[in-house]
Amino acid sequence: MLDDTYFMKQALVEAQKAFDRGEIPVGAIVVSKERIIARAHNLTETLNDVTAHAEMQAITAAANVLGGKYLNECTIYVTVEPCVMCAGAIAWAQTARLVFGAEDEKRGYQKYAPDALHPKTVVVKGILKEECATLMKSFFQKRR
Amino acid sequence: MLDDTYFMKQALVEAQKAFDRGEIPVGAIVVSKERIIARAHNLTETLNDVTAHAEMQAITAAANVLGGKYLNECTIYVTVEPCVMCAGAIAWAQTARLVFGAEDEKRGYQKYAPDALHPKTVVVKGILKEECATLMKSFFQKRR
Repeated sequence: MLDDTYFMKQALVEAQKAFDRGEIPVGAIVVSKERIIARAHNLTETLNDVTAHAEMQAITAAANVLGGKYLNECTIYVTVEPCVMCAGAIAWAQTARLVFGAEDEKRGYQKYAPDALHPKTVVVKGILKEECATLMKSFFQKRR
Repeated sequence: MLDDTYFMKQALVEAQKAFDRGEIPVGAIVVSKERIIARAHNLTETLNDVTAHAEMQAITAAANVLGGKYLNECTIYVTVEPCVMCAGAIAWAQTARLVFGAEDEKRGYQKYAPDALHPKTVVVKGILKEECATLMKSFFQKRR
């Protein structure tokens, strides 16, 4: 069934790829009409670029596929709550829906910029949040 | 003299390039030890990408030049107050100084995410603000 849990599992596959590369394990996908049009994972270390978060890459890739810069008929799935930068990008893209797994109390947009999203963006939180959070915890435990 | 006004003039040169391309006229440069290491202007229309703001490109380019992803010894000059997305990127880069010209009351980070920047980032506002604002006004008047 092509529901939010199904798509979040796909975002988790991306997050695992980041984990395996030694990157903070966050994955994102963009879905348009039940079709995945972009997949990305955090690459800030690999690309030596603080802007290379999963969401940023997924938004850029999705716009390329669509041939238009707005994602107003798309859902972006992210394993972890977006940061302020990514929330801003999700807003500029006028993304129809944002679905995220684990909350990020330290760096998430909800704390620093609760009104950063486009007013029309529907937000769904907590899909597979245990799995998404566990991957993050494993990563930071391994690093210590 | 290599002061903030000098460097903001260079950011304005970038903003003018955006204007001439039909892009919202915002320019940014990154300076390290009195040397300009990155220049960029808004390319959201040309690249069909909401993330292609001047600051985002300048941060990515500067990190490439430096070979490290932090700009903690750099100043970023932007002709217009950064949006939430760009403020988030400036924060992730741990940028030492942010200097901007005109304020952006509608989309600027100060309204939506006043604490988005890194606590160590020094902010200087209003350098050549008239010139920076005039370019924006001319652009939007021309569009109407």
